[in-house]
Amino acid sequence: MNTQKQISIVGAGLVGSLLSIYLAKRGHKVNVYERRADMRKNKIAAGRSINLALSDRGWRGLEGVGIADEIKKIAIPMYGRRIHHVDQSTVYQPYGKNDQAIYSVSRAGINMRLMDLAEQQENVSLHFSERCTAASTKNGSLSFINEHSQAEITIQSDFIFGSDGAFSAARMNMMTSNDRFNYQQYYIEHGYKELHIPPGPNGEFLMEKNALHIWPRGSYMMIALPNMDGSFTCTLFFPFEGPDSFATVQTPEQVSEFFNRVFPDAVPLMPTLTEDFATNPTASLVTVKCAPWTFDDKLALIGDAAHAIVPFYGQGMNCGFEDCVVLNELMETYGDDWKTVFSNYESLRKPDGDAIADLAIANFVEMRDKTGDPKFLLQKKIEARFSEKYPDKWIPLYSMVTYSPHIRYSTALREGQKQEQIMQKIMARPDIESVWDSEEVEKAILGALS
Amino acid sequence: MNTQKQISIVGAGLVGSLLSIYLAKRGHKVNVYERRADMRKNKIAAGRSINLALSDRGWRGLEGVGIADEIKKIAIPMYGRRIHHVDQSTVYQPYGKNDQAIYSVSRAGINMRLMDLAEQQENVSLHFSERCTAASTKNGSLSFINEHSQAEITIQSDFIFGSDGAFSAARMNMMTSNDRFNYQQYYIEHGYKELHIPPGPNGEFLMEKNALHIWPRGSYMMIALPNMDGSFTCTLFFPFEGPDSFATVQTPEQVSEFFNRVFPDAVPLMPTLTEDFATNPTASLVTVKCAPWTFDDKLALIGDAAHAIVPFYGQGMNCGFEDCVVLNELMETYGDDWKTVFSNYESLRKPDGDAIADLAIANFVEMRDKTGDPKFLLQKKIEARFSEKYPDKWIPLYSMVTYSPHIRYSTALREGQKQEQIMQKIMARPDIESVWDSEEVEKAILGALS
Repeated sequence: MNTQKQISIVGAGLVGSLLSIYLAKRGHKVNVYERRADMRKNKIAAGRSINLALSDRGWRGLEGVGIADEIKKIAIPMYGRRIHHVDQSTVYQPYGKNDQAIYSVSRAGINMRLMDLAEQQENVSLHFSERCTAASTKNGSLSFINEHSQAEITIQSDFIFGSDGAFSAARMNMMTSNDRFNYQQYYIEHGYKELHIPPGPNGEFLMEKNALHIWPRGSYMMIALPNMDGSFTCTLFFPFEGPDSFATVQTPEQVSEFFNRVFPDAVPLMPTLTEDFATNPTASLVTVKCAPWTFDDKLALIGDAAHAIVPFYGQGMNCGFEDCVVLNELMETYGDDWKTVFSNYESLRKPDGDAIADLAIANFVEMRDKTGDPKFLLQKKIEARFSEKYPDKWIPLYSMVTYSPHIRYSTALREGQKQEQIMQKIMARPDIESVWDSEEVEKAILGALS
Repeated sequence: MNTQKQISIVGAGLVGSLLSIYLAKRGHKVNVYERRADMRKNKIAAGRSINLALSDRGWRGLEGVGIADEIKKIAIPMYGRRIHHVDQSTVYQPYGKNDQAIYSVSRAGINMRLMDLAEQQENVSLHFSERCTAASTKNGSLSFINEHSQAEITIQSDFIFGSDGAFSAARMNMMTSNDRFNYQQYYIEHGYKELHIPPGPNGEFLMEKNALHIWPRGSYMMIALPNMDGSFTCTLFFPFEGPDSFATVQTPEQVSEFFNRVFPDAVPLMPTLTEDFATNPTASLVTVKCAPWTFDDKLALIGDAAHAIVPFYGQGMNCGFEDCVVLNELMETYGDDWKTVFSNYESLRKPDGDAIADLAIANFVEMRDKTGDPKFLLQKKIEARFSEKYPDKWIPLYSMVTYSPHIRYSTALREGQKQEQIMQKIMARPDIESVWDSEEVEKAILGALS
């Protein structure tokens, strides 16, 4: 237990809600201000991406406050990728060993559960429809305008956390009031659109339930994740411009032609395809990097507000939850020394935020292009085989990121780059397809490692 | 002459003022809105950097509207660098051939002349103390609050130019209202502080008048540029943190000790050193890159608002003036087809803005460190000798950037990288100091080039 502080959190999304529980459990008094209305009372979308993949870093964050079991009830394990080729054949690629899985959760579902669990804490209050208009580290003040009543309030607290997402108002206030704030936002050439595969007539899953489905098509892809009700949420990641793009696929006829041509096995499962395509928004994909993350030992950015990333490693939420874990460990270690907590939080997490941002960009190429490439699959098979034999010498990059919360993202990125260099040499052997499981290849990897 | 349009310019700085003259000369009706008060009536600093180096790209911009002669009256040519070593010896390095020079001009002086010249145009009106609060491309509207009366106005125009500097309000409005705006601001580890060398008792220059003075000291440097009144403006570029830095050099005693130790020949010329150091602000150095530069064929960013750069190539103003030249040429070519003018302006100038930003960062290392390095000076001598003999095969990078407005910044960057690769090999010869002016070395460069 630390000395009780008044703490304000801007944003009651996934990270803000979880953080409030961590802080309350440490004895602090926490007020959380959310711009949106209470999604538990109003049917509104909690952001755009309807489902997310929870993996070990995220579970660790939930376990830290004892709510992993609660969330597991609304999560569907996915043990591998089911690759859908244009010729309608499919291939299964396990994500890891045995029962290693990532879990499909509804973004709104988990957010609402986290809000419920936060409110069960005696010391947490959630405030909705409060739009942050100003933040100052001078006296720890925050101002909000209520979106309904237009009432303006200004509150003071000992510490402030900005967990208000990629377009954080807290961060924007720090950006304009602090000299030497480094900031970068960049968009990829692709956007995304969510589509729908409903459950079968008896509520059954119409595709394999426990897999993440991918239709890799080189420069673009579609994925689908299972939902609790037997449906799948599909997401098309597609260029904004170019021959096959949101610019050229627009009318119902164009949509039908395109989907029948490139996703033929999915079309029969998507009865509302053309309506969904016309109705659902086309959203963009941004990466945000900034520094510093903490200001005057008074305000800290966390989650997407500090490090918005593209979704291709399924790590956005997981990284934000891990921020909470690291912060909590630092509070445990440094007690009331908030200055040290803040500075260590930033120096530890900033390199990891940068690393997962770069990993997420790189994984898009892997998902949309390489998962359909036999040579790449062979490489992964060689790595898996070697890793199984020498688990202390080689953990595949995907496993480091997804199943190894004890390995920092920045370490995973660095090790992954080393592994890739080694594997490029191995894969360059003209005879690799015949000798891939030979002792010779194994020795070559061992040699390159030492 | 094009069809007359109503054009609004945000910012009456160097670029906004020059642009207004170009547009008026094409027959447009131009209103310029400046946040600051009229600097011609009030003694205020026009930004922080008191003098600037005008070079050929800038002159070309001024010549295009026939005002180069006006400005030449208030400019002092600098034909080379005078390097001041710690042992108080000095060395002269010419900037180019014969009478090639860059020109020291007072920022406020040139800005005020440009405002006068703008107001002499029948179709230009300048409005002061108008702070831009909103910009919209929907109907070409701009809103301003008058800093004195607090009166709010909203005006509409056919086209808008945002020339309101590194922290452009016009750009900020586009950033928040447009999806997929890529933006980056990053600060270097160094800040700067301006200091003063007054004229001698009879108004004479106390150092060589026609040179840019540099005290290169490895990780930091001081420079001095001449002013019309016989004084020099010195600028210390210095790390914010570290052993020798703004963090450690603060008190008058620390300032005296530091300057006597590292700039011993300058100290006797700086009678107000410790006062100036205490009084003058420490300013930071930012690079801004963004995309797009144009929005809905209605609003375009120009000058620092589109591409703020660090000052080490002396190209900030020159690049902004060149923006005006390029825009004017496109208007000449495409007449009333503003859509094509805007899109070509962006596609032509964006790579050049990025290139000069990177060149400016790289030149800091050259100025503060390499100008004091005999090996580097030998390399420059070899390049100069080769360039003199084969002027069509080799223009030194500095000359491409500074004296060659017909060579794009992006071309200069690329050619400069090739040259540097060649010279690294040449300089790696162990006997280079004895054979530097030999036919052998000349042949080696010729061979590498072909």
